[in-house]
Amino acid sequence: MAFNLTILGANSAIPIGNRFPTSQIVEFNQHKFMVDCGEGTQLQIRKNKIKLQGLKAIFISHLHGDHYFGIFGLLGTMNLLGRTVPLQIFSPPGLKEIIDLQMKVGNSGYEFDLNFIELNHGQSELIYEDDIVEVSTIPLKHRIPTNGFLFREKPGKRKINKFHIEEYKIPVSQINGIKEGNDFVADNGKIIPNAQITTDPPKAWSYAYCSDTKYSENIIPVIKNVDVLYHEATFLKTELKRAKNTGHSTTAQAAKIAKMAEVGELIVGHYSARYKDLTSHLEETKEIFENSHLAIEGKRFEYP
Amino acid sequence: MAFNLTILGANSAIPIGNRFPTSQIVEFNQHKFMVDCGEGTQLQIRKNKIKLQGLKAIFISHLHGDHYFGIFGLLGTMNLLGRTVPLQIFSPPGLKEIIDLQMKVGNSGYEFDLNFIELNHGQSELIYEDDIVEVSTIPLKHRIPTNGFLFREKPGKRKINKFHIEEYKIPVSQINGIKEGNDFVADNGKIIPNAQITTDPPKAWSYAYCSDTKYSENIIPVIKNVDVLYHEATFLKTELKRAKNTGHSTTAQAAKIAKMAEVGELIVGHYSARYKDLTSHLEETKEIFENSHLAIEGKRFEYP
Repeated sequence: MAFNLTILGANSAIPIGNRFPTSQIVEFNQHKFMVDCGEGTQLQIRKNKIKLQGLKAIFISHLHGDHYFGIFGLLGTMNLLGRTVPLQIFSPPGLKEIIDLQMKVGNSGYEFDLNFIELNHGQSELIYEDDIVEVSTIPLKHRIPTNGFLFREKPGKRKINKFHIEEYKIPVSQINGIKEGNDFVADNGKIIPNAQITTDPPKAWSYAYCSDTKYSENIIPVIKNVDVLYHEATFLKTELKRAKNTGHSTTAQAAKIAKMAEVGELIVGHYSARYKDLTSHLEETKEIFENSHLAIEGKRFEYP
Repeated sequence: MAFNLTILGANSAIPIGNRFPTSQIVEFNQHKFMVDCGEGTQLQIRKNKIKLQGLKAIFISHLHGDHYFGIFGLLGTMNLLGRTVPLQIFSPPGLKEIIDLQMKVGNSGYEFDLNFIELNHGQSELIYEDDIVEVSTIPLKHRIPTNGFLFREKPGKRKINKFHIEEYKIPVSQINGIKEGNDFVADNGKIIPNAQITTDPPKAWSYAYCSDTKYSENIIPVIKNVDVLYHEATFLKTELKRAKNTGHSTTAQAAKIAKMAEVGELIVGHYSARYKDLTSHLEETKEIFENSHLAIEGKRFEYP
């Protein structure tokens, strides 16, 4: 069908100017999700005119501050703006206790239900499913338990050409079955093969979010062939040792993962504050994986 | 001597555009303090090119998110930037537990000591003192225990005119005593009155920060005659009932407190997000207390 991705923050821990800590909005056919929520996310939401009424869930990769310190203010603001619809929050264990403690000392509460789902770490698990999309974890290698998230749009139904419905006088009762792949059996017993009267469903998109992580080929089977991969590239390739020591990746490592996993497109982000200019990040990823892009605050990637 | 105040955030709970939740930098003779620390404070610090190496203490008025959610990211950034000097944090009980929990789930720590001082509530207490300034609490009336903060510069020493030092051949051993108000006793026993050889010390400034609070005349004896009063004015005077119900003040109430306390100057802030334009805030305070000013993000008030 369609999906889009809005970058709210693509810097690592230290925000600089217009570069914010990590947060993204992922939207599949108007089902809206947030991935990570660094400090200032609510400012970016407002600046980018994103409506949050329909936000279904927030997925937190790990409990380093630059990936979740914005959730407190965001929840407070959603509450003040009148949210009543429940919200799901997926994160490693601990976030609920922090928020509960804040509510206690502030003698506060929310007018909507917060449903916390604590994530395991170690193997990929299906954690969310609705009629449009499935979300699974991607176990990453960082300094503390960290999950990436794999969004897979569910395959749509096959399309029947209206012309064929009239041509073969297909009754309404058989339409759904044919959309699901059945052949059409006419009253006289004649079989019209499905492929003759239908066309393929629209493409189902997939998106893998991998941050923060050191270089890990273990994720390749999980993210194999996804359409779009976001992979952190905190450092340029000269900082290989620093990347390893801090549990992060370089541009070249991100691009190598993209290449080995044969993804359609690579987006890199989570830049160290030491880099004022990101031109080299793009150049270094493109050397290994041509279809690479930079995550930049406010940028919206649309598919198709 | 001298003091200055930089407004980092002057909005209430919901940030809008360039209006951030509450935070201020108060500086007396290069002794730098932060009062409250709403989300995005570290962004404002960087935008306003404020150096934090010398920050001595952070004073948190109360534990509603718009007054402290920025402290987590700020501490993390100070740590990444290499702070090693201890930092004092004054707040109601509870903040230490929240930060400890965050450190635990993030398996993190700071390279500098955080010294938490938990504040009582109910009567004004001296909570901080160094060679330049004293800070006392101002008990406020809000929905949860809340303290304002009263900064009083210590009186400086009297100034001796160099001309008189030569004229009377005043020995170095007596200089300090004369600066503290002693008369000069010459070798021949002659007494030169202090007033004849010294001039008054520079003015010692005082600043009272009062947010969040409903209208409360109880604070008047504490803040009487301060040079500068910051008093919240969340609402215009038409919203008197809403102010009372939410534990806040109107413009007119802030100005009335300033007038009754006979302060030198009033600064109002903590504006509700409902007000896009603040002209009426200024007009309404000036009607009652002429020397009124608006707190605006990035604005620096300098005294003298």
